[in-house]
Amino acid sequence: MANKVVKKATKKPAKTVAKKPARKAAKKASALKRIGAGNRMSEAVIHGGKAYLAGFVAEAAAGKSVKEQTADILAQIDATLKQAGTDKTRILKANIWLTDIGTWAEMNEAWDAWAVPGQTPARATVESKLAAPGLDVEIMVEAAI
Amino acid sequence: MANKVVKKATKKPAKTVAKKPARKAAKKASALKRIGAGNRMSEAVIHGGKAYLAGFVAEAAAGKSVKEQTADILAQIDATLKQAGTDKTRILKANIWLTDIGTWAEMNEAWDAWAVPGQTPARATVESKLAAPGLDVEIMVEAAI
Amino acid sequence: MANKVVKKATKKPAKTVAKKPARKAAKKASALKRIGAGNRMSEAVIHGGKAYLAGFVAEAAAGKSVKEQTADILAQIDATLKQAGTDKTRILKANIWLTDIGTWAEMNEAWDAWAVPGQTPARATVESKLAAPGLDVEIMVEAAI
Repeated sequence: MANKVVKKATKKPAKTVAKKPARKAAKKASALKRIGAGNRMSEAVIHGGKAYLAGFVAEAAAGKSVKEQTADILAQIDATLKQAGTDKTRILKANIWLTDIGTWAEMNEAWDAWAVPGQTPARATVESKLAAPGLDVEIMVEAAI
Repeated sequence: MANKVVKKATKKPAKTVAKKPARKAAKKASALKRIGAGNRMSEAVIHGGKAYLAGFVAEAAAGKSVKEQTADILAQIDATLKQAGTDKTRILKANIWLTDIGTWAEMNEAWDAWAVPGQTPARATVESKLAAPGLDVEIMVEAAI
Repeated sequence: MANKVVKKATKKPAKTVAKKPARKAAKKASALKRIGAGNRMSEAVIHGGKAYLAGFVAEAAAGKSVKEQTADILAQIDATLKQAGTDKTRILKANIWLTDIGTWAEMNEAWDAWAVPGQTPARATVESKLAAPGLDVEIMVEAAI
């Protein structure tokens, strides 16, 4: 890649952006809204009529069964979608990670009880270890608002 | 997160939505279209000029070589994109999962024969076990329409 | 799925597209822009006010520590976002893969030094083996322009 030079805060000349926008689209750049904005990540970022949710893992159900963890996660997603002004019938895509793909059917028990038939998202489920023991399911979704 | 309370179908008071929209954006919420909408997931969800496809795995080529599985998947993706009114030159991003990252080169043989040089998507390929034996490749794409 | 027939370049009748558009939305289909467009993939695809970046792995820092690899990747992402006319405060979502989830804290050291508090993306981090030895981190992002 050409022009891979990245100015790392020296005298911060980029701070003059207000005078001469570096971004071509700066004038029409629409603001991003965030839910649960943190130092490392946000629970959701809202832009252009869509809500991008973080990967959610179980909270209260951490360490419990995959079915319970999944229901916990889906309730968190429902609540976050609600805060974003949308709901589960408007999820566009969902990525699901299981620490053991052998728990696929168990995860689906909770998923199927939650999903609205005919109003389901595009979905992919694969196996990946997650950030901490006791967390066996992670789900990340994008939804239309 | 505050307000994590999620009403789980009791007497379904939420069904009165038509009278008083809970969603702020309800008035301008555009409809989602789906291809192969099922009880658990949809083959594709269309919204805002984009098609979000599910993770596809081999059908006829299940259990065959990674190259054959990949070609099978890409043909399914082509057909689904066509139904959505777009094609492979308009794929924005692709996520590829291989049960054995050692088959990366073999997957790419089928991919490269299919891809249109210069009109290729952003892509990421990683290793993850998939939902069933005989399925060694899964591909999920998003495309502009 | 019906209509799974995919025409594979024989006499290329599809080249008559200009006369009779196969795509229903052909008339209003907006052009895609690409950064680093290759035969297999592009470094970024730009469409509809968003930049879809490929999964980036370390270049100069390949084989070095996870922290160094992460910083390398984030610098590449910064440079690519700049080329796309945006920056890290407008990242919508980030997917991170680590070959060893045990390096999660080390990856975060570089991430936290780079992230702008309160302007962070939705994020998910999972474990997956990557395409080559010496590559222990891969990051894929989508950003608003």
